[in-house]
Amino acid sequence: MDRVQKISQWMKEADVQVSFLTSTENVFYLSNFYSDPHERLLGVAVFQEEEPFLICPAMEKEDARKSGWPYEIIGYSDIENPWEFVQNAVSKRVGKISRIAVEKEHLNVERYEELSHLFPSASFVSAEEKLRQLRMIKDEKELSIIREACALADYAIEVGCSEIKEGKTELDVLAAIEYALKKKGVAAMSFSTMVLTGANGASPHGNPGLTKIQKGDLVLFDLGVVVDGYCSDITRTVAYGDINDKQKEIYDTVLRAQLAAVSAAKPGMPCSEVDLSARNIITEAGFGEYFPHRLGHGLGISVHEYPSLTETNGLLLEKGMVFTIEPGIYVPEVAGVRIEDDVVVTDSGLEVLTKFPKELQIIK
Amino acid sequence: MDRVQKISQWMKEADVQVSFLTSTENVFYLSNFYSDPHERLLGVAVFQEEEPFLICPAMEKEDARKSGWPYEIIGYSDIENPWEFVQNAVSKRVGKISRIAVEKEHLNVERYEELSHLFPSASFVSAEEKLRQLRMIKDEKELSIIREACALADYAIEVGCSEIKEGKTELDVLAAIEYALKKKGVAAMSFSTMVLTGANGASPHGNPGLTKIQKGDLVLFDLGVVVDGYCSDITRTVAYGDINDKQKEIYDTVLRAQLAAVSAAKPGMPCSEVDLSARNIITEAGFGEYFPHRLGHGLGISVHEYPSLTETNGLLLEKGMVFTIEPGIYVPEVAGVRIEDDVVVTDSGLEVLTKFPKELQIIK
Repeated sequence: MDRVQKISQWMKEADVQVSFLTSTENVFYLSNFYSDPHERLLGVAVFQEEEPFLICPAMEKEDARKSGWPYEIIGYSDIENPWEFVQNAVSKRVGKISRIAVEKEHLNVERYEELSHLFPSASFVSAEEKLRQLRMIKDEKELSIIREACALADYAIEVGCSEIKEGKTELDVLAAIEYALKKKGVAAMSFSTMVLTGANGASPHGNPGLTKIQKGDLVLFDLGVVVDGYCSDITRTVAYGDINDKQKEIYDTVLRAQLAAVSAAKPGMPCSEVDLSARNIITEAGFGEYFPHRLGHGLGISVHEYPSLTETNGLLLEKGMVFTIEPGIYVPEVAGVRIEDDVVVTDSGLEVLTKFPKELQIIK
Repeated sequence: MDRVQKISQWMKEADVQVSFLTSTENVFYLSNFYSDPHERLLGVAVFQEEEPFLICPAMEKEDARKSGWPYEIIGYSDIENPWEFVQNAVSKRVGKISRIAVEKEHLNVERYEELSHLFPSASFVSAEEKLRQLRMIKDEKELSIIREACALADYAIEVGCSEIKEGKTELDVLAAIEYALKKKGVAAMSFSTMVLTGANGASPHGNPGLTKIQKGDLVLFDLGVVVDGYCSDITRTVAYGDINDKQKEIYDTVLRAQLAAVSAAKPGMPCSEVDLSARNIITEAGFGEYFPHRLGHGLGISVHEYPSLTETNGLLLEKGMVFTIEPGIYVPEVAGVRIEDDVVVTDSGLEVLTKFPKELQIIK
């Protein structure tokens, strides 16, 4: 069953006559057309039985066709009202609309009012939970793109390490990393690249700035690369010169926790158990209060998606889920260490997609 | 009258009892607190007479205070329901809510349903038009920040020109520009930097890639820098080596049009007249069909805001408006040229904020 068919199937069960989805991410997921036309309308409409359609600005119609969407594409110019096209296309397909599914966390009030006006007797339900569930399990094509994004993330860390030198600032190193990636043709990062040194790495709100890297610092990199619409996300913490015993103890604890979670996780295990397999090690080492976030998050078209690896999420791991494993310990004024891999659930355990070494790297 | 008072004043006229604004841009405009807490709630509530309040995640409360907001700040933790705080804080201030102003182009359906539930007898009106009007006129403090952002944009073009060499790709040059800006402490660009060479510059949908710059090419830079929450936006087109007569004719026409608009514009003139003062020159030169966009757009906290310089907008220029003047001619397969300045309306005309030379620069 393809992705559109899975939505149709869900709509039958949920008694929804039309799903109208307008976020860049979900339109891409369903149509393979990646576009952000800002204030202009872009949407995919799915029905229980009838042919779906895609609506976009006229000047993007050709690109949408090239992306491979095999169904109707409606283009509208800047002087036409796209909502009239939506109304016509929907009413050609179905008579009575009693329930419409939309992205309630994405759709704005202006568009909601347009839809309410076009379909005055319809009630609105959320399509987001269903889409999150579908997007959570990656297929082979998605995995091969994510692998490529992860390889570029590994390369970025390599570049970052080679740039660490006395007197260089966080922004110097960050700029060199993004420069090297652009030279490889990378057009976008998954999020704002983080390079944090010394005490900055121990602050939950650190932003890279003009702080200079000094001998004895731990330097934390957190970054990701977008390839063909999919994100990677890696964190490594490395030492510049000799670090003290407390820093080493923190590093070793995070590494043990990370490795424990990577070896524990397998299909059928609840997310909570994966989180706790790392968290318990950190707590037992006496750093529990300094690990204030969840163990990890799903990633794919969005850098944060399902599953969420918290200590309370009972969701069971399934083959094809892609997520991060990223325990961290942040002791203010002492050290901040986080080690993050991207992983995919296999038949029997995990495959680790990010490959940069995790044993403490000491830059001389 | 300060910004909050201006909103209160408008609310009295529009019979609105509470305005609840949640976009990063408008919260920053009213509170000086710049934050994007993603799925977590951030908002400013304004009333006709009562004290406004700001609500944000608890961990951001301190930052919000430091930004200078002098009124109540409500922090909530991840296990608290922020909407209960909103309801209590509102009902402490006003009894009956019949009209609420929100950002209808920003607020999502989920939050709209929360507010509808909290204030079931209220109708919703849009606050966006009023905020756009207020934000359109910049004060001295805003102008001095924008000047700084423009100076960095000038510097970026300088770097770009110095990087043009045989065999370099668009992405090479782009990477060098952003690297140089990061070294100056720039943390964000206004939008994705464009470096387009040859035929790519003539395509409305050009994206920087691995195309190599060759002698005889026109190279188009379009970029901007964010400083303290405010954007600049500059375009320059330069020649690499000798260009042909057709390219020169196109460049000269765009330059004449740009200079004409810059000298024509003054307080009291309709936006349409500014647009036409450039457009007519391009049309008379026979390139009218190759200038498919408006002359310019306002800029400030957003890179696109009011006023909009189209050939039909009757809005009159006022002192303190900041906008771009950016005529362009794009002849497919021949040449794409755009020249863009940021300007501010003064007592008698315009001050041009971007200073990089506009006479054709020929890189040898």
